[in-house]
Amino acid sequence: MANFDLMRRLARSEGGKIILLVMDGLGGLPMTPDGLTELEAAKTPNLDQLAREGSTGLSIPIARGVEPGSGPAHLALFGYDPLVYDIGRGALEAMGIGLAIGPGDVAARGNFCTVDDSGKIIDRRAGRIDTERATKAVEAVAGITLPGVELIVREVKEHRFALRLRGKGLDHSLHDTDPQATGVAPFPAKASSNAPAAHHTAELINQFIAQAQQRLKDHHPANMLTLRGFAGDPALPQFQDVYKLNPACVAVYPMYKGVSRLVGMDIIDSDAHDEPSDEFKRVADNWPKYDFVFCHIKYTDSRGEDGDFDAKAAVIEQVDKALPALLSLNPDTLIVTGDHSTPAKLRSHSWHPVPTLLWAPKTHMPDRSQSFGERECIAGGLGQFPATDLLPLALAHAHRLERFGA
Amino acid sequence: MANFDLMRRLARSEGGKIILLVMDGLGGLPMTPDGLTELEAAKTPNLDQLAREGSTGLSIPIARGVEPGSGPAHLALFGYDPLVYDIGRGALEAMGIGLAIGPGDVAARGNFCTVDDSGKIIDRRAGRIDTERATKAVEAVAGITLPGVELIVREVKEHRFALRLRGKGLDHSLHDTDPQATGVAPFPAKASSNAPAAHHTAELINQFIAQAQQRLKDHHPANMLTLRGFAGDPALPQFQDVYKLNPACVAVYPMYKGVSRLVGMDIIDSDAHDEPSDEFKRVADNWPKYDFVFCHIKYTDSRGEDGDFDAKAAVIEQVDKALPALLSLNPDTLIVTGDHSTPAKLRSHSWHPVPTLLWAPKTHMPDRSQSFGERECIAGGLGQFPATDLLPLALAHAHRLERFGA
Repeated sequence: MANFDLMRRLARSEGGKIILLVMDGLGGLPMTPDGLTELEAAKTPNLDQLAREGSTGLSIPIARGVEPGSGPAHLALFGYDPLVYDIGRGALEAMGIGLAIGPGDVAARGNFCTVDDSGKIIDRRAGRIDTERATKAVEAVAGITLPGVELIVREVKEHRFALRLRGKGLDHSLHDTDPQATGVAPFPAKASSNAPAAHHTAELINQFIAQAQQRLKDHHPANMLTLRGFAGDPALPQFQDVYKLNPACVAVYPMYKGVSRLVGMDIIDSDAHDEPSDEFKRVADNWPKYDFVFCHIKYTDSRGEDGDFDAKAAVIEQVDKALPALLSLNPDTLIVTGDHSTPAKLRSHSWHPVPTLLWAPKTHMPDRSQSFGERECIAGGLGQFPATDLLPLALAHAHRLERFGA
Repeated sequence: MANFDLMRRLARSEGGKIILLVMDGLGGLPMTPDGLTELEAAKTPNLDQLAREGSTGLSIPIARGVEPGSGPAHLALFGYDPLVYDIGRGALEAMGIGLAIGPGDVAARGNFCTVDDSGKIIDRRAGRIDTERATKAVEAVAGITLPGVELIVREVKEHRFALRLRGKGLDHSLHDTDPQATGVAPFPAKASSNAPAAHHTAELINQFIAQAQQRLKDHHPANMLTLRGFAGDPALPQFQDVYKLNPACVAVYPMYKGVSRLVGMDIIDSDAHDEPSDEFKRVADNWPKYDFVFCHIKYTDSRGEDGDFDAKAAVIEQVDKALPALLSLNPDTLIVTGDHSTPAKLRSHSWHPVPTLLWAPKTHMPDRSQSFGERECIAGGLGQFPATDLLPLALAHAHRLERFGA
């Protein structure tokens, strides 16, 4: 990981400005033995130009062979070793919708689901009900009271909500209640440690579940709920402190806002329907206020998960087309990368190293890459490197690190 | 090293099947400035085809610049950091001939040697006596009794034997008695630590040596013995536990069986005269029973040690020719590599990174390598990586690892 002691010692509060553009799940695979990857196949004249001018390489998100989840993969891009900062997704999701997680709080992700008369799950996502109907279900359970605890339930998107318990003597060491299967009832909450506080919290959650079941009876298909990813305050080191950066995040999905907020970024308002060009406009509008902007593009990953090679390539082309708007801001360092690979061929995240491009016209070392693609990046000047080294590289190229020693 | 906590957390007991084919001492050097290496010179149409289809790279067995022994080099291939798991060769040799090393046992490797009338060594290997004559020498010393200790002496091959002491209060912290030179007498056993148990064990070993000298008097040229590589039970984490693999080993030499047994592999019967094609047949015969098979080819290393460039290349060609038998098993991941380099030019193991090929047609990322050779591997998609990362990569490509985080 980025050596935070070293960064604290070397980081300067002056220097150039940085854009970190992350296309989620950017890395891909050829669909056929002789084929191209999504990124290689996409027509990307702007990215290719940056690759010709700057340095490319392949980043390893967690460790060789390890398929990353989105939360840890982003932490790695921000310089935090995900094996050290192993954060429950409940905290990320809650933070993403602006629900701060403080010391002693317990957060979880929730799904509304559909159960049959015997209580067995028949749809884990309640038919993916729309946000409007889900909001009514949220209102129904938000009024539940628990002894000695402040309870907040808040809609995330469609069937998903976030939950926060605040009070004394809580512990987030709980197993998921989501059985991740249909045909079985949700599990009761159960402590995953022997701590009395964990047992106490499990009991509170079970009271919540029992009351929720009553209150949701008439909200079919959202007539039950499951909880998972119980998490407490991860108390992460902050960008301002470690890197001396004044950072902001432009992202559409709550999870990415969540992880950004956890490291100290301001979250810039966005709209769920933002295209890449809309997101870049938000970056531009806020550019004067920040010296580091993280901009997250979700749909490369989504189309990869769909197994839709062409659609993923099309999202990359959208980004490429909109890119001049970012370039016109004259960032001192621009990094274009992914948090992990999501090859359409595998319809899933994967462990393959991620194509990465570092463009910093005043300081970058040009290599021989002629375009932006996996196989050009293999021979790129950045080599293969842990994703956690990217932030120090970004700072260095923006002259934001002091010399080490005399 | 492979992070065992992480592997224990992520490894699945289902997924694809893996073959790890190790040509001992595979890496080489050109004999002349403009020449090719052994692997580059060998005609290897099958390996070249796999290199074109899959990913190549260079593996670093121990650390940059460090020339590996065979034991630690294999541990690294199995994901065990040899700097952490620093195992005496005595334990490897003993395990290799089926002599289990349990907690508190002390094992060592032995050589029969020839001494003159004054007790000085004149041949460190007793003229490399054949196994039959050596077995008689082993019988002569196997009857020695030591107070409070169960002693086993067992023939390995030619002049080599293994020794195991089992009893209370033993410690394997002993120096070698083999002076690794002629013209001097074998050293007496001596403790390498201050532990009383080590001094006690040294005394027992000296009793053994004194009695052995008497009993070997008429066994010229095997009229004396030396001991080295004193070792205890290394208690290694097991493949089944760490990687959730059901593993087997096909190897001809005892040491490789030994290290495989130490990590939990079943040892498949083999014959000392097996050619690569015979070994591949043994892999095929046992393929249904295992999800991981390690297959070890010894003679690339032996011919490298001989300084015989052409003969080493010929062994590689033998392997290439026999390779279709392995491919016909349809492994999900096939890795072809060496444990270290043994350039004929140097007549010795060397520290040079080892050409490595990963072929997993459902999941590999093709790179631009057009053949299997050192210089193609430099630009390969796996980059240069610690050998200990190979097992996680093999698991990932066979879909045997869960995602890390959500």
